[in-house]
Amino acid sequence: MPKDKEQKVRRPRAETPRGLRDHFGAEVRARAAMLGRITEVYHRYGFDPLETSAIETLEALGKHLPDVDRPHAGVFAWDDPDEGWLALRYDLTAPLARAYAQHRNNLPTPYRRYQVGPVWRNEKPGPGRFRQFTQCDADTVGAASVAADAEIAAMLADALEAAGIARGDYVVRINDRKVLNGAMEAASVLDPADPDAQAERRGVVMRAIDKLDRLGIEGVRALLGAGRRDESGDFTPGAGLGDEQAAIILGFMEARRDGAAATCARLGELVGASTTGAEGVRELETIAELLEAQGYGADRIVVDPSVVRGLGYYTGPVCEAELTFEIADEKGRPRQFGSVAGGGRYDDLVKRFTGQAVPATGVSIGVDRLLAALAMRAGQAPADPGPVVVTVMDRGAMAEYQAMAAELRAAGVRAEAFLGGGNMGRQLKYADQRASPVAVIAGEDERARGVVQLKDLALGARLAAEIETHDDWKAQPAQVEVPRDRLVAEVRAMLARAGAG
Amino acid sequence: MPKDKEQKVRRPRAETPRGLRDHFGAEVRARAAMLGRITEVYHRYGFDPLETSAIETLEALGKHLPDVDRPHAGVFAWDDPDEGWLALRYDLTAPLARAYAQHRNNLPTPYRRYQVGPVWRNEKPGPGRFRQFTQCDADTVGAASVAADAEIAAMLADALEAAGIARGDYVVRINDRKVLNGAMEAASVLDPADPDAQAERRGVVMRAIDKLDRLGIEGVRALLGAGRRDESGDFTPGAGLGDEQAAIILGFMEARRDGAAATCARLGELVGASTTGAEGVRELETIAELLEAQGYGADRIVVDPSVVRGLGYYTGPVCEAELTFEIADEKGRPRQFGSVAGGGRYDDLVKRFTGQAVPATGVSIGVDRLLAALAMRAGQAPADPGPVVVTVMDRGAMAEYQAMAAELRAAGVRAEAFLGGGNMGRQLKYADQRASPVAVIAGEDERARGVVQLKDLALGARLAAEIETHDDWKAQPAQVEVPRDRLVAEVRAMLARAGAG
Repeated sequence: MPKDKEQKVRRPRAETPRGLRDHFGAEVRARAAMLGRITEVYHRYGFDPLETSAIETLEALGKHLPDVDRPHAGVFAWDDPDEGWLALRYDLTAPLARAYAQHRNNLPTPYRRYQVGPVWRNEKPGPGRFRQFTQCDADTVGAASVAADAEIAAMLADALEAAGIARGDYVVRINDRKVLNGAMEAASVLDPADPDAQAERRGVVMRAIDKLDRLGIEGVRALLGAGRRDESGDFTPGAGLGDEQAAIILGFMEARRDGAAATCARLGELVGASTTGAEGVRELETIAELLEAQGYGADRIVVDPSVVRGLGYYTGPVCEAELTFEIADEKGRPRQFGSVAGGGRYDDLVKRFTGQAVPATGVSIGVDRLLAALAMRAGQAPADPGPVVVTVMDRGAMAEYQAMAAELRAAGVRAEAFLGGGNMGRQLKYADQRASPVAVIAGEDERARGVVQLKDLALGARLAAEIETHDDWKAQPAQVEVPRDRLVAEVRAMLARAGAG
Repeated sequence: MPKDKEQKVRRPRAETPRGLRDHFGAEVRARAAMLGRITEVYHRYGFDPLETSAIETLEALGKHLPDVDRPHAGVFAWDDPDEGWLALRYDLTAPLARAYAQHRNNLPTPYRRYQVGPVWRNEKPGPGRFRQFTQCDADTVGAASVAADAEIAAMLADALEAAGIARGDYVVRINDRKVLNGAMEAASVLDPADPDAQAERRGVVMRAIDKLDRLGIEGVRALLGAGRRDESGDFTPGAGLGDEQAAIILGFMEARRDGAAATCARLGELVGASTTGAEGVRELETIAELLEAQGYGADRIVVDPSVVRGLGYYTGPVCEAELTFEIADEKGRPRQFGSVAGGGRYDDLVKRFTGQAVPATGVSIGVDRLLAALAMRAGQAPADPGPVVVTVMDRGAMAEYQAMAAELRAAGVRAEAFLGGGNMGRQLKYADQRASPVAVIAGEDERARGVVQLKDLALGARLAAEIETHDDWKAQPAQVEVPRDRLVAEVRAMLARAGAG
């Protein structure tokens, strides 16, 4: 193309849309390895994998058609001339309900599945807030028994340990929406005879309870009452409960005692007068008994009435996994890492499609948060090893260099011949950028003598850090000459030393 | 909700949009296992994983804004009020070009990456044609040397063998667009002084060559000339070449000889008069030498001038992997399985963003086709084993049943306690649907006596198939009573026998 013609073409910007991003190398490997360990636990529990289409009809996702002013609120959606409104899934639960309703005649009951995959949220991006992220869900559809909820909680504990979170570094907390509703009844913000009344106020109460970790008990008390002014002066209106009403809710939140039996007994005192509340307490008792019989003690799973989970669709037991070790927040103050997974029972989602209530319960792991937690626990996530780089001193001998790399790979060693341009300095810089443990050097001289030079880059980096001088590389003990036919054996020995170092 | 109110709500259809689908259980596991083996080969070659965002700006994908009549042609795209036109990626190459251009200052050169993930095509769905499918790509960006192309071909062969395709059941065929262009020059359909002229005609020629497998040499000859009428009477216009011109193209297609050296020599005779053609022949010679030095003979990789690859953006070496074993087509006639992967050198894609030419070469595996091929090769893809099902005779003893399942899992056995409702018949039907190898039965009587019944469902199914009678299950030798504390050991022994049977 003539140059003047070429310059007229406007170049596209090389950028992802805002709030979207690329994931590279070691991060992708670490995430895949973590998800492999988690899904292996799910599989061993008898769950089967499912992969649903990323695109669903908007009506199947359960969002009403977007309004005219904000056609894209919450979901990425578009009006297809042939298919009508389509959308990218925003979680893995709505597609499960659709898939189960669609295929239920061919699926076993209960249907137990796990799914890992991206979901999309059309929300304003911000620091740490992305519009595509990975979820990892496991759900049991068609089992009304709370034994299914107990199993989900146990499986979540096992999955976290398989991922690399040590016992003691996490706790799975369990509650029951029915108990919460019993407390709402006791506090006169829920009337079983008119369950729709005060729904908005109950939403404010639930959000207030959900903020206990962040605001403490006095902050929640303010939000249950008239409202709360934060440090910046912003005012959040409260639920408008009277002191007595608020005291009942706060009493419920603080009902946790030593041991599940004592907690359930205390909850029975608080909400036992409500039919729903009493049923919820019985459910928690059963779950606690099932877990205890399988050896899941308070070091792993506890009944904790302060767990409510934000989502509106839960109808029974809910659970949340929290990491209990401390990290430094953005201001350097220690705080607990916090929630990495949560779920619960939602018995009405499939009914939308079939008209028949289908009980379901499940859990979703926040993959990015859990991966960040693992990265913070030193030694938990070993870095992806870089390849051994066979440098190219003589482009005419490329066949020999590629053959060396092939020999190393045949022995299970990650290896490549350098395929770019440039002198040895540039090639070693490349090896450094790839975090290569070893560089292989074979110039004309070495090839004539039937030897190769092996540069231990891992050791070289450590020596360089220690002695802080820039001596000639060849003078370093980190480089050795070995016979050509000892290439594979010597590289493996070097890698073994590096692994131990 | 009162019943009359409920009935007014229109139920959403429980369906994926047309051309989209769900993947279940064993298929998901088999695909993940295959991709794991392939990407492990890529990784050992020094390639790093990359995961790009599913959503790109439409301009980054390199499609012009859709026209008014068909705003969704080819890609799923929508006009976002804040971001402008966004689209789902339709392959993994365009996002690589964008990602490399965006992050090139932080990436090594050459940058070698693999990516596995879904892509979306907004095309009319049909039998076997889906609008979301998985691609598995590996590319080297920033290496001008054909050593990079040779490496891609060798890696593709290794990846196919790792996936489970035996040597001899596939062949990687290599050609070079420059050689093809030399043939075009020789046939007077390409003028190096005016390369844009006759571009459309060259497209017809390329598509004709691409149909050799399906139409045979006479069909291609017709398409190079006046055109071709097929069996249904439909007429496809040809390239309008004269007999002599067509003979040159056909001679090029049939230039393959025994061994790469002989083929390259023949190609030199045909296209050596063209500067571009001669360069292409030299490239093929170099690639053949590099592969031979690494031991990749004609049983794995061959130079074959009839390979052209449809995509317009290739600029140098191209390759295609074909499975050579026969399958029955829809009419029961034997035919070769055909292509499962392809790729080549495309040196201009990054330039769209940066203005600077960046050499690149890569390969893409058709994941669904390769998986179908593996499923056809008996014994290659073992079915996903179902879980051992601990049946529930007595719901009050659920803790004990769940504890049995937990013991089995702790010993590495996939196992679950039945969580649905229903009698033993229904539970065994569930176990059958899950392809369970073993059911565990422990009623009140068994628990009192400290034993469990183990039903060997795999053996039972074989016996049932043999004797074709419906005797009482308990009378079958497929059921044994064992002490409770031998549960794990006896189940494992049963599984070992089933695995051997």
